This record gives sequence, C-alpha cells and structure tokens, in this order.
Amino acid sequence: METPAPPLKVGAVLFPDFELLDIYGPLELLSLLGERISITMLAEQAGVIRGNQGIKGVADAALADASGFDLILVPGGWGTRACVLNAPFLAELRRLADGARYVGSICTGSALLAKAGILDGKRATSNKLAFDWVTTQGPHVTWIRQARWVEDGKCFTSSGVSAGMDMTLGLIQVIFGRETTLQVARWAEYTWHEDKTVDPFATLPPSA
Amino acid sequence: METPAPPLKVGAVLFPDFELLDIYGPLELLSLLGERISITMLAEQAGVIRGNQGIKGVADAALADASGFDLILVPGGWGTRACVLNAPFLAELRRLADGARYVGSICTGSALLAKAGILDGKRATSNKLAFDWVTTQGPHVTWIRQARWVEDGKCFTSSGVSAGMDMTLGLIQVIFGRETTLQVARWAEYTWHEDKTVDPFATLPPSA
Repeated sequence: METPAPPLKVGAVLFPDFELLDIYGPLELLSLLGERISITMLAEQAGVIRGNQGIKGVADAALADASGFDLILVPGGWGTRACVLNAPFLAELRRLADGARYVGSICTGSALLAKAGILDGKRATSNKLAFDWVTTQGPHVTWIRQARWVEDGKCFTSSGVSAGMDMTLGLIQVIFGRETTLQVARWAEYTWHEDKTVDPFATLPPSA
Repeated sequence: METPAPPLKVGAVLFPDFELLDIYGPLELLSLLGERISITMLAEQAGVIRGNQGIKGVADAALADASGFDLILVPGGWGTRACVLNAPFLAELRRLADGARYVGSICTGSALLAKAGILDGKRATSNKLAFDWVTTQGPHVTWIRQARWVEDGKCFTSSGVSAGMDMTLGLIQVIFGRETTLQVARWAEYTWHEDKTVDPFATLPPSA
C-alpha cells in the first residue's frame, strides 16, 4: 500500500482591512482538496481581524509563532497601505515565504511581497486599479500589467480580487495535476479562466 | 439637495460548517457598494463559527436578537444537514425572511429556505451535486435543475458555490441598476455570467 502524501500545509495571512474574496476565494478552492490540505489562518496576533466592511475573520496563530508551511497566501485590501509600513510584519512574512515551497498573493497582496523583498528579480502582477501604487513598493520587480496571474519560480501573483481564484486553480494544477484541478473547479461550479495571459480588465479604459 | 437613500441592510447567516465562498463571495461584491450597504453577520449565537476546513467566521449578533433587514443571505455547506433539523434556527430564518424585501441563498442554502417554508409555491435551484437531497427538503417548491440562479418574486436561489456571485450581481442589478452592477464586477475583476439560464454544470455527466 502506498503511504498517502502528507497534506499540503497552507498558511493564510490576515491583517486589518483585508479583502474578503482575496483570501476566502482561494481558500474555498484549496479546502475542496479535503485531506490533501491543511489550512492555518495567521496574523500579527491570533484572534479576530476585521476585513472589508467590518466583516471579521479569525487568525489561529500569530505570524511570529508559525513556521513550516508549504504555501503562504497573502490577500490584498486597503489594509496593505498600513502593512507596507509595518517592518516586523514584513519580516515575518519574508521568513515564512523563504521557508515555503510556494508563495501566492492576490490583488494588492503583491505590494506586501514586493516590499518584503520576496519578489526581487521576479515578474509579478497586481490589481489594475491600484497598479501604480503597488509598483512603487517593488522597484526591483518586473511588473506585468496585463495578466490574469503571473507565475515566476515559486511566486504566484494575481490580478484583482476574483483573479485569485483562477491563480489558485493554476497553483493546484502545478501541485496536484490537471484532473484534480478540474474536479475542484467543478465542485465549486467555477468556470476557470485558465489562460493566465488573458486579462479582460487590463484593456478597459482607466477612467471607467 | 437629494437625501441619500439609507443603506441596504444585509443580514448574512452563518452556521457551523458553512461553505466559505458561498457567503464571502456575495459579501465581497455587496461590500463594494460601500456606503450604500450595511452588513451584519448573524448566527444562532454571536461569536466565532467554524466554516469548512475549520476556517472561522464571526457572527456579530444572534438571529433571535436581529430584525429589520432588507436582504437575508443564506450560504450552503455540510452544516445544512444539521440545520434542516434545527426547528428554532429555521423559525428565526423564516421570521427574518418574512420581514425582508429580498432573500438570497447560495448552493445548499436553498434547502434551509425550503425547509423553513420560505420557498413554498416558488421556483428555486441549488447545487447539482446535492440536488436530490435538497429537493426532499421542499416538496412544495418547483425545483429547477438547470439554472445559474433562479429569481422568483423576492427569492433568489443560486446553484453551487461560485454561482452565488453571479446571482448577487443579478440582485445588485435589480436593486441598484445595471451601471452600478457592471462597476462592482469590474472593481472585483469578475467576469459576470449574467444569463441566469446558462448553467454549464447542469449538463455534465453526474458521475464525473
């Protein structure tokens, strides 16, 4: 009998004013992997964290007490504006990312990876509507404006909000293969936008 | 000067083992309406509630203490199996739904609306993979197997998981108009599947 592979250990990072769908969309898809995955919610302190519109998430553990994750996931949201100024937070993020096999960010979450130096020398993307701000956080990053998501080595970065779900399926495909990915998408009744270079939102006029 | 309309009061119902994306997907889109909306998380008791994979949400108020919502939102998830047997929970759900202008369910959330009698005499849909179980909860409901979502009077019911986001944009369009809806979808970088009769998941073979 084959010994089952140990579950993929996911650390999902919350901070005040995180964007709900950025993190819960990817986590929904990952959670459908069942026993093949374990998920820990992280934040500067364990406990309740307010997301957008005051809707609350819960961190199971403090960043500083956490280690040993295969995948670190970082959402965006208005709270990223404060987080890029929070050196201890960024140092913990850097430590966890350095130890992980994969790092994924959604929307303006790539500003945090960039500011922490995790994306230096890599290609990455972000939300279109905050693109100019995000790119100032990472002068040593090659920013790609038109992409549903960007994969460079172990770093996966997605465009705005919903794009995180397409990226997550891309990540599941890399780790668990295509058949599992299509099954997960089907369980979620989600139509996967699987070509990461197709980005319908990059070509809309900026003012609309 | 025009007096701004009061915000749409949304009550979002949590229960143990709720499905993350069912509720946070719709709430993300609604939250992008900013000051035009207020959102209260509800559950049998206020406090922390475990969703799928043990990821926790937080209820701001107990169902029995809550009233006066314009829209009641009900997710699905494995927890619906216990909730259909919970008469006090269903009675509170019925009371809140009776007082609301709109009621929305996602995935197997329609089993709860059905069991509470809220869908009697109406058309409704649900998750394809749990369809046979859901329909037993509502013998007086006209169940529609092939639909991204179904709208009948004040009741909006969606297919599985991701379909809740398409339904929510449909609901936003009814309440706030088309221009606002397209703006919200764009802020979320979400490609809206806006034809509620198109359901790519209904026609897949049941065993796959």
